[in-house]
Amino acid sequence: MGKLIEDFNGYRTKMNARISETANTNIKRFLALDTTSYADGALSVKTKEMLGLVSSMVLRCDDCIKYHLGKCYDAGVNTDELNEIFMIANLVGGSIVIPHYRRALEYWDELQQQ
Amino acid sequence: MGKLIEDFNGYRTKMNARISETANTNIKRFLALDTTSYADGALSVKTKEMLGLVSSMVLRCDDCIKYHLGKCYDAGVNTDELNEIFMIANLVGGSIVIPHYRRALEYWDELQQQ
Amino acid sequence: MGKLIEDFNGYRTKMNARISETANTNIKRFLALDTTSYADGALSVKTKEMLGLVSSMVLRCDDCIKYHLGKCYDAGVNTDELNEIFMIANLVGGSIVIPHYRRALEYWDELQQQ
Amino acid sequence: MGKLIEDFNGYRTKMNARISETANTNIKRFLALDTTSYADGALSVKTKEMLGLVSSMVLRCDDCIKYHLGKCYDAGVNTDELNEIFMIANLVGGSIVIPHYRRALEYWDELQQQ
Amino acid sequence: MGKLIEDFNGYRTKMNARISETANTNIKRFLALDTTSYADGALSVKTKEMLGLVSSMVLRCDDCIKYHLGKCYDAGVNTDELNEIFMIANLVGGSIVIPHYRRALEYWDELQQQ
Amino acid sequence: MGKLIEDFNGYRTKMNARISETANTNIKRFLALDTTSYADGALSVKTKEMLGLVSSMVLRCDDCIKYHLGKCYDAGVNTDELNEIFMIANLVGGSIVIPHYRRALEYWDELQQQ
Repeated sequence: MGKLIEDFNGYRTKMNARISETANTNIKRFLALDTTSYADGALSVKTKEMLGLVSSMVLRCDDCIKYHLGKCYDAGVNTDELNEIFMIANLVGGSIVIPHYRRALEYWDELQQQ
Repeated sequence: MGKLIEDFNGYRTKMNARISETANTNIKRFLALDTTSYADGALSVKTKEMLGLVSSMVLRCDDCIKYHLGKCYDAGVNTDELNEIFMIANLVGGSIVIPHYRRALEYWDELQQQ
Repeated sequence: MGKLIEDFNGYRTKMNARISETANTNIKRFLALDTTSYADGALSVKTKEMLGLVSSMVLRCDDCIKYHLGKCYDAGVNTDELNEIFMIANLVGGSIVIPHYRRALEYWDELQQQ
Repeated sequence: MGKLIEDFNGYRTKMNARISETANTNIKRFLALDTTSYADGALSVKTKEMLGLVSSMVLRCDDCIKYHLGKCYDAGVNTDELNEIFMIANLVGGSIVIPHYRRALEYWDELQQQ
Repeated sequence: MGKLIEDFNGYRTKMNARISETANTNIKRFLALDTTSYADGALSVKTKEMLGLVSSMVLRCDDCIKYHLGKCYDAGVNTDELNEIFMIANLVGGSIVIPHYRRALEYWDELQQQ
Repeated sequence: MGKLIEDFNGYRTKMNARISETANTNIKRFLALDTTSYADGALSVKTKEMLGLVSSMVLRCDDCIKYHLGKCYDAGVNTDELNEIFMIANLVGGSIVIPHYRRALEYWDELQQQ
């Protein structure tokens, strides 16, 4: 596993465990909703993960981008499809998204080298 | 055609014409890119319009939401699919998106009553 | 009841009813969480509504501001307290918040004239 | 004076007067800073107003855009210069800025018809 | 003192000193306002720091979150209260806030281990 | 060359090369527009870079800030002018910009020590 993926997953797993120990009921419900909302339904998991990815890019959250890149990879998004998501994210969100696009591409390269 | 749709399209058409008269070359290139990026490609028009819609919702731009709702409607997005987009937008963007969700639903109702 | 309050409440009530008719289960859970999160708990309703108000102001959502202004008014926030919330919102969010502050003040005046 | 300008200035003047009656000392200091920061200094008023305009556009605040358009007009910004500001705002902020660009252009047309 | 706290405070102190050497009068006034706005007044320091924290979370600024977490800790905010702030921040700001919540929790743990 | 500058430029150059290898036509057009929009025209390069800098600050993107700081430095922006840009960015964007201002100042110091 690449270093970026390992660091991201490691920290996320560690802190999610700590959240489980400390969060109140409403936070736990919110996090549960975060999981169920991306489940297969009227839209496929793949489509939902692409929606999650583009949202994360226009809102410019690197961790959220990494998370959804991993999920998109697992759901079978290919590089041509990914590039079209990248384009819409850069277009809608503007050039301010470009640094996040750079880091997203680096992470995607790691995902593909697994 | 419903009143919301008519008002939105009317103003947009009028001002796009005025932009055509006044914009410089770079702006025209940017607007051209805005069109070509949603064309059928590695991802379908329908998927791209859903990406445009969810991006517009988390960034909370009512006009952009109306535009992509119209395009989603034309591309055959159904109400169950739309509700899953609405959910992801509310989840990722937070409760601050809810007022835009209300207005989006009202616009969608008009689109369906055409 | 003042015109601004009546318009806001009227539209919100109408569209929330429409949401109840059309939303999927996850959206309903999200909206339920939105209600329970502001209930009396470790923090009082008054404190939570002030948190909701300042968040709405720095994120610049007029409808959310109106909603939490109404709730702050009901929870007994007085004008001196409100001004300190306005100040923190303008300070943290910047001068881009000022137009929302103007509209918030107008709405607060209506709330007090009830 | 055009209708958009009159409406914007009228409401702004009315609510600024109400702010003067109700604001606390810190808010008044903040609003004073807002004025002095755009005064002639190391950068000219014209340059500062262009900075204020592009900031307002990428942050997507229509009232702030109108305010700085008026100030840019008074400071002698011409339409070619304005179009380059519009381009940078659309580019940096993304296509989500386009609806604000439409409204900005309409307001600019009114400013020029005075 | 924990490593996160030490790093944050160290860099902040160093750069605030550099700002003092280089900033112009308006910047100094702005920073002074930033201090006085959180002083005890119609609202307590504790309430104001909670307002500062929730604002920083929905606007997703890790440094601002750390700063206000430290101030909330000093003002006696307890973990149950903090969790309700975390919930409102996640709810209003959306799941895009979750990575900041993870880092905030890690920082809070360090504050408590002092 | 200072460490911050070297790190920023090194990563940017590396990933821009990777983007050149992988991006689709629309992305390449978007990136080309990003370059041509800052070229000398109705507004000077210096003015446009100041517009790019202030936009990057209010949108709070450290990489974009570094990029435009470098360009502003090359275009002859002096420290008094920069401080007025910093002030407008802090004022418009709010205190949430302050951590980015700290990092911007540190980067500017490195630029001047070249």
